Amino acid sequence: MPERGRIGIFNRSYYEEVLVARVHKEVVDRQKLPDQLMTKKIWENRLEDMAAYEHYLARNGMATLKFFLNISKAEQTKRFLARLEIPQKNWKFSDADMKEREYWKDYMHAYEDAIRSTASVHAPWYVVPANNKWFARLIVAAATVELLENLDLAYPAVPNEKTAYLAEAKQVLLAEQAKK
Amino acid sequence: MPERGRIGIFNRSYYEEVLVARVHKEVVDRQKLPDQLMTKKIWENRLEDMAAYEHYLARNGMATLKFFLNISKAEQTKRFLARLEIPQKNWKFSDADMKEREYWKDYMHAYEDAIRSTASVHAPWYVVPANNKWFARLIVAAATVELLENLDLAYPAVPNEKTAYLAEAKQVLLAEQAKK
Repeated sequence: MPERGRIGIFNRSYYEEVLVARVHKEVVDRQKLPDQLMTKKIWENRLEDMAAYEHYLARNGMATLKFFLNISKAEQTKRFLARLEIPQKNWKFSDADMKEREYWKDYMHAYEDAIRSTASVHAPWYVVPANNKWFARLIVAAATVELLENLDLAYPAVPNEKTAYLAEAKQVLLAEQAKK
Repeated sequence: MPERGRIGIFNRSYYEEVLVARVHKEVVDRQKLPDQLMTKKIWENRLEDMAAYEHYLARNGMATLKFFLNISKAEQTKRFLARLEIPQKNWKFSDADMKEREYWKDYMHAYEDAIRSTASVHAPWYVVPANNKWFARLIVAAATVELLENLDLAYPAVPNEKTAYLAEAKQVLLAEQAKK
């Protein structure tokens, strides 16, 4: 997490623990959890822990926004084809993405459950229609600007003793300029 | 936190956030929380977040034990006097400890609330009578041994192909020994 006063942007996050790990059980197997913890409730438990964590962040003055960029399967088909047909886009095509596409429904189910279980006033989810890129960007930018404005931030006030020093510094600089 | 398979020992911990910070409000002031978060519920909220965190640890296979070494104010008087009277113990005497002693009641209240709010099956508190050092150590050791035994740990089993190699290695070593 970023330190107080800073902004952090997560491209992927701890939500992977209830998304790719949920769709591909072998990811969880590699985590070597004790057997008795590998129950049907594991996803519900993880989502509860994540919601609790975001509550903790809010109580410590962190403002959280979460975005799900929602594209349709047909739009993904179009984008993958473009990567195959346009030479300048070939580098973007990934075999792994192609394979993950087969789990579309499982991912949708995992996303839906994650979003429902962790949406809250202090850490809202924005499900952004993202087939159209400029529209998706507009939504994300607007939500971010709104949050920043609500934080009611201000530049630090200058203490009185420093005001005098600023006036002095200005005189020195003006005198220097007048000499030339 | 220690990585999976390791033991970590905390001498002081995140509980300081509801102990020294609660007794000395200026500690919280230095954390620069937004004003609207500085409410009367801050200690209740922090304790709730800590309990949630320990629940998260348990769900990830971490076994947690928490000990409060409970000494009486009279016993502290005795120990501080020993530090002043016995030259070999002078180095241990601290002016800060002497000052914190004035807040005894506030600390007791903070400890009591913290222990009550975070005691759970998966992360129990042990309030250990500690005027007598050997008795306190016995309690801590016994609780730790009990926990370790319940983990039902075992050395890794040797795979079949390695059993043959072990027998071979034994023959080589015995042959070498016979030569001398």
